[in-house]
Parts: sequence; structure tokens; C-alpha cells
Amino acid sequence: MATRTIASWASELQYSTLPTPVIRAAVRSFYNLAGCTIGGSNHEATAIAHKTLAPFFGAPTSCILGSQSNTKTDAQHAALINGIASHVHDYDDTHLDTIIHPTGPVASALLAYAEYLSSQSKPVSGKDFILALVAGIEVECKCGLAVWPNHYDVGWHITSTVGSIGAAVAVGKLLKLDTTSMQHAIGIAGTQVTGLREMFGSHTKSFHPGRAAQNGLLAALMASNGYTSSETALEAKRGWANVVSTKVDLDGQAKTLGKVWEIEKNAFKPFPCGIVIHPIIDGCAQIHREHGLDVTKIKSVNCKVHPLVLELTGKRKPKDELQAKFSVFHGGALGLIYGKATPAQYEDAVVLDNKVIEVRDKIDAKADKDLLADQTVIVVEMQDGSKFEKKVEHAVGSLEVPITDEQLEEKFLDQSSHAVGQDKAKKASDACWKLESVSDMAQLASVL
Amino acid sequence: MATRTIASWASELQYSTLPTPVIRAAVRSFYNLAGCTIGGSNHEATAIAHKTLAPFFGAPTSCILGSQSNTKTDAQHAALINGIASHVHDYDDTHLDTIIHPTGPVASALLAYAEYLSSQSKPVSGKDFILALVAGIEVECKCGLAVWPNHYDVGWHITSTVGSIGAAVAVGKLLKLDTTSMQHAIGIAGTQVTGLREMFGSHTKSFHPGRAAQNGLLAALMASNGYTSSETALEAKRGWANVVSTKVDLDGQAKTLGKVWEIEKNAFKPFPCGIVIHPIIDGCAQIHREHGLDVTKIKSVNCKVHPLVLELTGKRKPKDELQAKFSVFHGGALGLIYGKATPAQYEDAVVLDNKVIEVRDKIDAKADKDLLADQTVIVVEMQDGSKFEKKVEHAVGSLEVPITDEQLEEKFLDQSSHAVGQDKAKKASDACWKLESVSDMAQLASVL
Repeated sequence: MATRTIASWASELQYSTLPTPVIRAAVRSFYNLAGCTIGGSNHEATAIAHKTLAPFFGAPTSCILGSQSNTKTDAQHAALINGIASHVHDYDDTHLDTIIHPTGPVASALLAYAEYLSSQSKPVSGKDFILALVAGIEVECKCGLAVWPNHYDVGWHITSTVGSIGAAVAVGKLLKLDTTSMQHAIGIAGTQVTGLREMFGSHTKSFHPGRAAQNGLLAALMASNGYTSSETALEAKRGWANVVSTKVDLDGQAKTLGKVWEIEKNAFKPFPCGIVIHPIIDGCAQIHREHGLDVTKIKSVNCKVHPLVLELTGKRKPKDELQAKFSVFHGGALGLIYGKATPAQYEDAVVLDNKVIEVRDKIDAKADKDLLADQTVIVVEMQDGSKFEKKVEHAVGSLEVPITDEQLEEKFLDQSSHAVGQDKAKKASDACWKLESVSDMAQLASVL
Repeated sequence: MATRTIASWASELQYSTLPTPVIRAAVRSFYNLAGCTIGGSNHEATAIAHKTLAPFFGAPTSCILGSQSNTKTDAQHAALINGIASHVHDYDDTHLDTIIHPTGPVASALLAYAEYLSSQSKPVSGKDFILALVAGIEVECKCGLAVWPNHYDVGWHITSTVGSIGAAVAVGKLLKLDTTSMQHAIGIAGTQVTGLREMFGSHTKSFHPGRAAQNGLLAALMASNGYTSSETALEAKRGWANVVSTKVDLDGQAKTLGKVWEIEKNAFKPFPCGIVIHPIIDGCAQIHREHGLDVTKIKSVNCKVHPLVLELTGKRKPKDELQAKFSVFHGGALGLIYGKATPAQYEDAVVLDNKVIEVRDKIDAKADKDLLADQTVIVVEMQDGSKFEKKVEHAVGSLEVPITDEQLEEKFLDQSSHAVGQDKAKKASDACWKLESVSDMAQLASVL
């Protein structure tokens, strides 16, 4: 019954019943995502995808965000390319209970299709967009929770495997699918299980949420025209959940829809890398700020971290930006040297800078299973024997120490200015904050 | 090393080294597939996909086969729609060791992209096409064998999960990718694991090979422009094989490339349904022909079948065409009543015909694990007490009793005439037989 329960909930969800904190979380999620997409728009991975796909572009209804020349393409390609850009700096949002980055697949599909609808004289308002975004993200995260952690442990990139389902539900909501059609949309999305963790550290990691956006969009469109799948796609014996995980609790999660809002548990990264590295960067940046230390005189840096940190991000000698995203050592070095970590500090030139390498090589990290994933203990010993110690209880960007709207705006402007310049970045930022009062999402997209 | 071994083999394969039986198998595989694609072109599933995707079509370089108005679209959509059509009647080819239907995903991607290349003044010859087709199908089937049977047992539709990899290798071969780029193409294709068996009996079953074709095409194109994935995508700890199967023998299979040709083990269906039903249809049709029995006077029909037959195709009371494909009882009834089974006998009107239902309901089948999958024993008892017994050792269409070129042509003409009329069907058939001597595949596609 889970597929039907979920489809029915999504079909019937109304804007008037959304709690205020949920709407606020949706606006912040979209705002952060738009900044990340613009910020990732001139990344190599995005550029290759754009160049590769250009010969196949259809009628230009939907913006490729951040592109200097305001390029438009068809909704399917916009969903794919914007989805890639959204994730390419590993700077997007995180549903902390599952490490899903929920907004990329859902919002990339939604925005592209909202623009298509506008081109058909059926404009989508900001409120309709928020409603669909919330429906998609809630379903996406509940599906993720239903198979977490086994699904991820086996080797699936959960952001995209559930992202396609979230995107299908969101676009299905825009299309006002009834419950049965929504079930079919979920099935068509669910059968496209995209994303192996083996791809981490390569361009294909960011392809995952992009393709998930496109898969979900396609699924909803096909279902809206009567393409059938299974009405028990999620829970059947050989359905999605049982095939992709050995431990499943779909019914338990489906029951909590509309009671426990997952979007309220969505966090925003202050640093453009895997979330498990954040405590180290945060702690090292605090030491930098508090002690203004001379990094050339560091003797050693010893950290204790949650075991997952080394499993996921244990790259000792990263050779480029993408590998550096998976190096807790690079993250620590950035904190100590610069007191911050933005996409600029992950560029190849910085990753290969001898000054950075020297500090990076002095950092050691040991797994400590008594620590939580957002905790760390850092001890910096200087050549003169002095020591600085920092315990991070909750990293900045966690739910306990959330990023403020001001910090979110700083992050937005920093990354989008690099891609489109300060003026455009400021205009885009202002427009995104006003999501609730937008009358036609295509107008908003045009300034992104 | 498996990914590299496979990529290297495919990159280096040359037409001049292909054994004659391999070329013959490739021509027959393409011929059969073209007929199936034309035959499936006016099916509801194909029509919905076409209608849904039309607003997103790009520059028209590639034919949607069989479409009355000679519609062209971009290569990606042509790959998807032709791939759907190729499988929608469950009439395509079968690699019997794995139940993979290998040609649909590979040829649909290849043909669409060959037409694109022709539009760029880079025509692809029939021989280049055959070479790429063989490379794709060999890799596809070796990957399938490496994870068979666990992968299928868990619930994956193996045709599409390996189909995307085969399509990527085939298109990569057309693009003359070097070994490293081919490895990346395999990774981008492999990370898109599309196809749950739960979808069997719905339109989405045929979506699988279509999407696999498109996934593979996209993967090869991205890799050709430098989009990176993993160079050990297939064999890594959390790579494709280990994530999608609990039992893996990639190295063992990779070693046999070019020594054991899988395409020679490709069989062609005489009946448009799951291959495990074929012995029953064959046996019942033989009884029909040999005894000309009056089906209204049947008392009972008792069959013994391989256990998989009932597991896969045990639908007792199919309600429409798609369900009838998974009913061994419907198949048996068709053999007894008509002495044959073509797509026409799977249309809803026949499935719901009382005369057919009456015979269908008299058929019983019991699992017998001593029988092979292509064997059956059928006992028809008439109301007057007389009995007809038939043991089928190997169903027609098996490797032991292969379909002849004449039977293949009869099948091609029967199904494609329904879609495009006899004249066009004959022209298409003649053109496909001449695959080896084609100078520009776009010219061949234009008569399909």
C-alpha cells in the first residue's frame, strides 16, 4: 500500500495546510539550490554536458541557469544540465538523516517544467512551485529513510536513486495527477535507479542528480499521458525498495507524511564538500580565527573523527578539485590556512599548491566511534611545542547550528558572482528570496 | 581490470577479424529487430511515448521507425522511442543463456546515432554498423553472464540493465573511443541501472530497453567529450556488478571476449511473448496441425513445464494484451485454437474473446524441475475420452531448432505489414537483408 499511500498524500496536499516553517524551509532550500546551480554553471562538468547535448536541444523554453548568454533549451535538457550544476561543487543542501541532497533533482525538474508550462500560457506561481517542491522532497526523503542505511551502504548514491522519485512526484503535482497516475509516475521514476557511489570523485557524481531530475520529469509526463507502470512499484516483492535494499520500512515512513516534515531537517552546507568533512573545516577555521597561527610552523595536526569520515573522505593526496572534495585532509588544511572553504579553495591550482600540500600532509585523522558524524576533536601542535585544541560539538551548518539567512545570502553571492558577476548575482538573490510572491516562475528563472 | 579488458577489446575490435557466422548472426539480429521495431511502432505504449516527448524533440536527424509520416526526431529521442517499439510485442531476440534481449538497446542507439552522423556528413557504412553492433552485444551479454542469475532473481530486468552498457560500447565504437574513454563510457552507462521486473505486464517493461538505448548513447557522447566516470566501474567494490548482484564473475567472462561469441547464441522468437511460453505454444500448435481438433470439445489440457514458466508467466486470467504476454495459459490456447501466435492474437479483443477464455480456462500447468526451460509435455483430453500427447524437446526458435531466414522474413513481413502496409514492409525487409553492403545507414533507416 505504500505507493498508493504516498501518491494519495502527494495528490491531495494543499498549500493552505503547509506549516509556516515548512514554507520557510522550502524557500531557503530553493534559494540555496539556485545559488549552487548558478555557482556550478561554469564548472567543467556542466560545460561538457552542455556542449555534448547541444546538438539535441529541443524548443528553447527553459533556462540553463547562470549561462552568460541566457541560453534556453527544452525542459528535459534544462533539468539535466541544471541538476548537474546544482551538485557539482558539493555545495547543495543535505537531509542529514540520510545524506540525501534533496532539492537538486526535484527543483531542477520543477523549474524547467514550470518554464515549459509558462511557454504554453500556463504560468506556475511561486506558491504552486513551493507546494510541488515540498511534495517532492517529502516523498523523496521518506523513500530514502525507508531504505537507509543499507541502500547507501551497498553502494547506491541515494541522492539520485530517490531523487528521480521526488522529481516525478513534484512534476506530477504541477500536472495535478490523480492518485493512480501519481502511482504510475512513481513507478516509471523508480525503475530508473541511477547512481553508483563508485562514481564519487568523477564528473559522473554530479550527473546523478541531473539525470534523476530528468528521469522524474519524464516519468511524470509519461504517466500523465497514460503510460502505465506498477501501482505497487515501491513495496512489491520485486519492487524498488526490496531490490535496492535489504532492509525496508516503507509503510512506517509513509505513515509519517505530513506529520514529520523532512524538509525542516534540511541543512545547508557552509563548505563545498561532503558534509562529514564540515566539523574538521569548522574546527580548523575556528583555530585559525582564534589564534591567527602561522601555518608554516605547524608540527602536526591530529584529529579524531566519526569512522564514516575516513571511509568516505579519506583521500590522502588529492590531485584535483573532485578528489579534494573527498579529502578530509584538504578540508582541514583550508580551515587552518584560510579560515574558510569556498569553491575557490577547491580549484585545481589550490589543490596542487605546495603551501597547501605541506599543511595537508601534516594532518592525521583517526576514527573514533564514540564521536557523532558532526563532531570532531582537533589538536594542532606547533614546532615550538605549543598546542591548540578544539572540540566541535556540532559543525556549522548542522541543524543545531544552522546557517542564518545572512550566511546563506553570503554563500549565494560568493558563488554566483564568480559565475555571472556581482550585479546579476544580487538580482538573482533578491528574486529568489521573493519566491512566495512570484506569479510566473518563468520570470524568476529568467533572472537566474 | 574487467572494465579495462572489456573497453580495450571493444576499442580494438576490427571488422576483418569477425568470423562469418558472427556477421551472419549480426545481420539476422538487426533484421529481426528492425521488423519488431516497425511492428511495435503503432502500439499504444510507443504512441504515448511519442506524444509525450514530441514537445521536446530536437533537430530531426533520426527516423522514428515505422511511423507513417516518416517522422524524424533527434537521435536521443529516436533511440528511446525505437527502443520501446522494439520490445513492446515481446517479439525481439533472446540471448538464451541470460534471457537478455540484446539487440534492442544496442541497435536502437546505434541506428539513431548513425543517422545523426550522416546528417553531419559522416555516413556510417553497414559494415561499421555491424562492427559496432557486435562489440555492443558481446559486451552486453558478457556483463549479463557475469551477474546471471542472481541479478535477474533479485528483480532486475537484465535486458535494460546491461543494455545501456552495450549501447554505450556500440556508440563508443562508432565514435572510435580509445580504451580509457570507452572505460568512462561504460561507467556513465553502468551507473544508470534501469529496469525492475516489477514493471512486467505494464508499458514500462518496453520503456526499459528504450531508456537503456538512450542511456548508453548519452554515456558514449559524454565520454567522448571528456566527461569522467570511474575506470573500474564494473568491478570496483561498490561498482556496477557488486551493487546489482551478489554473485559476480566479471574477469571470467571478460576473458572469453572474441573467443566465445554471444551473438551466435542469439535466438529469434516465433511468438511475441516470454520465451518460456514458447514450448507450450509450439506443442499446442503442433497438436492443432496434426489433429485439427475441435477446441470446443476439449475436456482438459494438462502440461508439465519448467518451474520458471509458472513463476514468470503464471497469469491465469489475463485482462489485456500486456498481461496475456505473461500467461502460459493464453499461449497454450492460441496454439490449440489458431495453430500460431502473432501479435494479432495478443490484442485485447482476442484476450477477452469468450472462445479463447473457454479454452484458456481448461489448461493446467504443473512445474516439473526435471524439464528444461525449452521443454514441455502436453496432454489434451477430449470430452469423448480421446487423448493427444505431445512432448516438445526443443521449442521452435531455440538454438537447436532455429528459425530459418524464410521464417524470419515471414515474421518481419507479418508484423511490419500491420504497421506500414505490405509494400513498405517488403521494401524494408529487402533493405535490411542487405545490411552488409549499405554505404550510409541513414539511407537504410529512411526505408524503415
